[in-house]
Amino acid sequence: MGHRAEPEHTHPDEVPVQTALAALADPVRLRLVRELAGAADWERSCGTFDVPVGKAALSHHFAVLRAAGLLEQRDQGRGRVNRLRRAEFDARFPGLLTLVLREEIAGA
Amino acid sequence: MGHRAEPEHTHPDEVPVQTALAALADPVRLRLVRELAGAADWERSCGTFDVPVGKAALSHHFAVLRAAGLLEQRDQGRGRVNRLRRAEFDARFPGLLTLVLREEIAGA
Repeated sequence: MGHRAEPEHTHPDEVPVQTALAALADPVRLRLVRELAGAADWERSCGTFDVPVGKAALSHHFAVLRAAGLLEQRDQGRGRVNRLRRAEFDARFPGLLTLVLREEIAGA
Repeated sequence: MGHRAEPEHTHPDEVPVQTALAALADPVRLRLVRELAGAADWERSCGTFDVPVGKAALSHHFAVLRAAGLLEQRDQGRGRVNRLRRAEFDARFPGLLTLVLREEIAGA
């Protein structure tokens, strides 16, 4: 794989609540967040998520999560690995991730 | 004004978190919720909200808020009055309304 741009990130402190809610109000992104919450930091690479979308759509969902301050990504070897920004996001929006993670999502 | 159907309501206990997040991830609905939070129960009638949308769109936003367990409406005389279901919604999604109400929404 050739050279590619590093992903852009937004810190949760810069994220309006509306952006955070919109990022989480989607079944695919909720699934990604839930899977990340169950994994160690940097454990999951982009191709390992069990979501019913193609590569382009998945890339879009990752971008939305980064822009909402929920996701940190870095390139590692030929892949890209992921971390849920749980502590930073919890500091900015206390309790929101807990609400989202506490229940199974219907149909997801 | 002639006979019309009473609005249908959904109790917050029946609402998936994704539905609650989607209802709040919209600038017009956030504005409605914020205005309701600043008013007494049943104080506000439907025509009194300061939102930049037409009657049909407003009616849709009210329906989304009712389906998310956020809004109770009842007919009163020739109008319809509104109540934020704050206690019930807080019991179902602790802290979520507090997060939403604590900051001004950019551009709303």
